[in-house]
Amino acid sequence: MSNAPNQTDFTPPTNIDLKKYIRTIPNYPHEGILFYDISTLLRNADAWQIASARMAHGIAAWQPDLIAGIESRGFVSASPLATALGCGMIMIRKPGKLPGKTISIDYDLEYGQNCIHIQEDAIKPGQRVVIIDDLLATGGTLQAAIKLLRKTGANIIGAAALIELKNLKGREKIDVPLFSAITYNE
Amino acid sequence: MSNAPNQTDFTPPTNIDLKKYIRTIPNYPHEGILFYDISTLLRNADAWQIASARMAHGIAAWQPDLIAGIESRGFVSASPLATALGCGMIMIRKPGKLPGKTISIDYDLEYGQNCIHIQEDAIKPGQRVVIIDDLLATGGTLQAAIKLLRKTGANIIGAAALIELKNLKGREKIDVPLFSAITYNE
Repeated sequence: MSNAPNQTDFTPPTNIDLKKYIRTIPNYPHEGILFYDISTLLRNADAWQIASARMAHGIAAWQPDLIAGIESRGFVSASPLATALGCGMIMIRKPGKLPGKTISIDYDLEYGQNCIHIQEDAIKPGQRVVIIDDLLATGGTLQAAIKLLRKTGANIIGAAALIELKNLKGREKIDVPLFSAITYNE
Repeated sequence: MSNAPNQTDFTPPTNIDLKKYIRTIPNYPHEGILFYDISTLLRNADAWQIASARMAHGIAAWQPDLIAGIESRGFVSASPLATALGCGMIMIRKPGKLPGKTISIDYDLEYGQNCIHIQEDAIKPGQRVVIIDDLLATGGTLQAAIKLLRKTGANIIGAAALIELKNLKGREKIDVPLFSAITYNE
């Protein structure tokens, strides 16, 4: 645990290559897709502490009230940020997963269509929200999540991803400050 | 944030009734089921800090190496425990969600059958694992998760739930120490 950051100090150490802990899997979930598997990062205690601290460090200055995680790997990245930064946490989920009244948005993916929901009372107007997903690729899901949350009157002050695939230019679709903890250019 | 515990002190305050933050929804997801909605707890910063700290306090003495979360609300409860306690995190997921080789277990639910997977290399033999879900009801899912993880040679040292519905006696199915942060007897 010698490399693990103190939970109350969000300055992450910089002398560790987190990419070493991420496994790539060709042709998953579709032919031609190189999948970045974060499981191998998560299961390493030191690497996961450092990655999570790096995310907390990247967004702390935005002073969010709420962290919104996108189902379901996004929950893994989002939830520790809510506890580390003293925020509430909300869940952006697939259809049929949230009880009570929800609002939703449909959007296009590279492979078909998708739909995400939040509970209609999840956010009070004006609350400062940061949206978290595990991976920023083409940016379609994150862009849709920003639009969805704005329907509630939320103030979307930023977004963050554990991994950003820069060559897919998802960042260009995002109209709020964006932090990514680990970036790939290939 | 006056009630929020310090992240390095796992002693939670006891003068807050976390049940006040949990909404019940009748007949969801099935007729006759009273659903305990944790969304209203999660979105309240103080309540979520305290609930999460209470879970960390409940399991810290077991000294886990890994926290295993059950998809997908279990990820929300599990992931902050991994960062708070300096552990790795692993994902117990529904079929088709994990890349690479997986091992799985089928089990019966009140309404039909279910199946959960983990990556076959997720856990090294002998690693000390605590399994987390958001809700312990009849205990079928948690019981299956324990059996599944034991197939890897894991040492399952305990389990924890954010909410336990005691009258459903799920605890009787669980053969490891079990901590629950919020209990209902009705």
